[in-house]
Amino acid sequence: MKKLINSPEGVVKDALAGMAAAHADLLRVDYDPDIIVRVGAPIKGKVGVISGGGSGHEPMHGGFVGLGMLDAACPGAVFTSPVPDQMLAATKAVDGGAGVLHIVKNYTGDVMNFEMAAELAAAEGIEVAVVVTNDDVAVQDSLYTAGRRGVGVTVLLEKIVGAAAERGDSLLEVKRIAEKVNSHGRSMGMALTSCTVPHAGKPTFELGENEMEIGIGIHGEPGRKRMDIQDAASITELLATPILDDLPFQSGDQVLAFVNGLGGTPQIELYIVYSELAKILEQRGITISRNLVGSYITSLEMAGCSITLVKLDDELTQLWDAPVQTPALRWGM
Amino acid sequence: MKKLINSPEGVVKDALAGMAAAHADLLRVDYDPDIIVRVGAPIKGKVGVISGGGSGHEPMHGGFVGLGMLDAACPGAVFTSPVPDQMLAATKAVDGGAGVLHIVKNYTGDVMNFEMAAELAAAEGIEVAVVVTNDDVAVQDSLYTAGRRGVGVTVLLEKIVGAAAERGDSLLEVKRIAEKVNSHGRSMGMALTSCTVPHAGKPTFELGENEMEIGIGIHGEPGRKRMDIQDAASITELLATPILDDLPFQSGDQVLAFVNGLGGTPQIELYIVYSELAKILEQRGITISRNLVGSYITSLEMAGCSITLVKLDDELTQLWDAPVQTPALRWGM
Repeated sequence: MKKLINSPEGVVKDALAGMAAAHADLLRVDYDPDIIVRVGAPIKGKVGVISGGGSGHEPMHGGFVGLGMLDAACPGAVFTSPVPDQMLAATKAVDGGAGVLHIVKNYTGDVMNFEMAAELAAAEGIEVAVVVTNDDVAVQDSLYTAGRRGVGVTVLLEKIVGAAAERGDSLLEVKRIAEKVNSHGRSMGMALTSCTVPHAGKPTFELGENEMEIGIGIHGEPGRKRMDIQDAASITELLATPILDDLPFQSGDQVLAFVNGLGGTPQIELYIVYSELAKILEQRGITISRNLVGSYITSLEMAGCSITLVKLDDELTQLWDAPVQTPALRWGM
Repeated sequence: MKKLINSPEGVVKDALAGMAAAHADLLRVDYDPDIIVRVGAPIKGKVGVISGGGSGHEPMHGGFVGLGMLDAACPGAVFTSPVPDQMLAATKAVDGGAGVLHIVKNYTGDVMNFEMAAELAAAEGIEVAVVVTNDDVAVQDSLYTAGRRGVGVTVLLEKIVGAAAERGDSLLEVKRIAEKVNSHGRSMGMALTSCTVPHAGKPTFELGENEMEIGIGIHGEPGRKRMDIQDAASITELLATPILDDLPFQSGDQVLAFVNGLGGTPQIELYIVYSELAKILEQRGITISRNLVGSYITSLEMAGCSITLVKLDDELTQLWDAPVQTPALRWGM
């Protein structure tokens, strides 16, 4: 296992120390339990927005803490749900009296632990609303999931919903927008290589020299099928078609198109995929009115990509365009 | 070879098509010769700033085209210098009458071709100034270089100098600042794995299961030494010490610290390296007053990192903080 780490045990804390050192203008890190909190939180009268999940998907979620996105993030061990104590601490740290939204990716551990944290927060008098993302069209149930997995839409949802909270929307309204983004979004991913969880010390799965896995999960969970590697145009088609057919996206739609790298994929390849995706959408009469190309929800050093499409309307577009100031996403300031 | 590409021949053009499709608000792509040009260029009375080099280092340089950074970029074939025709076309596309600065990394092919382009531009009446970056302390001469290689400082220089040009500085002044950034900056990198050039179809070099290469070049050129992999703290020390001793950086200095991923390195590892670097600098009484953590000058999917330090003063800090609006770097707008 070749990694720039000090020890498998230290990965999360060491990276958190780096985040804290690099981004003291935007966030602070509390330890025991580990949470990343926006500078200035809680903001009186503003809905708090938090998320969390296993580490290894960076910049998600800690890299999205800051103005116009998350108020706090809860990093678990690598590929392991954070514990309710973290979520409770984050909820309390960002509660400005207007309630707190929990953004939860649909994995059994995350859902269960966030549920417990919401109950604990309620017992302390904090109003909590929850949105569970489940945008991955690859498989219905999975290794760690009942129903569909929550993947790329989570990034876009955190941005859009963060903007709604920032402008002063109520908890009810923020939750409505969150559910809208999730219901308007679909994703699918693929891998060229496995990743290696530091504790495990060996690849999560094995792929042959000429194989790829279509529909891969962000922890390396099995996807739809393993097949021989194809060219970028064919791979993009294999990802885009199930996404487009599922919602379905239709001629005349405006979309936010997100081409995401899984951690080990160079940017030059992501732009090739984006180019192919743009052609496919154009053929279907779908307009990409906003886009995001980069590695934002990753699986350690896995090589591969995912595509997420969210159908936009004026409300979502305006919130997407609103200022954001986080380690990983910034514009409009 | 596992890559998200259509063909080795198509990599650069296909990625350029993706850039053009994704970032039409910031840039356009011209083909034959291939150049990436800022929307609105040339800007009358503003010094034009261009750079270029082999592809495979993305987002450098195309991802830095936009307000407050580059006016144009010239992408060569993968790891191959662009040709003088591209540099000439870029120079003409951005000449607003105040002259054009060429930012050239110190590789023999790049230097030679930019020289030829500067002569051709001069023959057409365009005033050209040149800065050659050579910040890599790893080796004195190298596979493609007489003298030191130009690496990470190029990214920071393009940002800082782009800001100077944006505020209306003269060509002489812009060149002075460019030379100051280069002379204040030092870098060194290391690799855990090789990259694979698409045309070659196999890894550029071989590293054993437990080996790393310290002082690696961004094309996989040999570095200082090959050795057993160590922990992140030791690796950071191996990179930082030669950098610090070379300028030298001293107690009381303010620096811009840049921890860069080489393309296949997950962000969680970069933050671990950043944390170690912050400790080393603190021990030496050096203050990190600005930082950048991410993959900005890459070597395809190579796993590894580089560290760049630039000694800051008020002038450089102010230019670093100035607004920038490019695909890969944006803030302050």
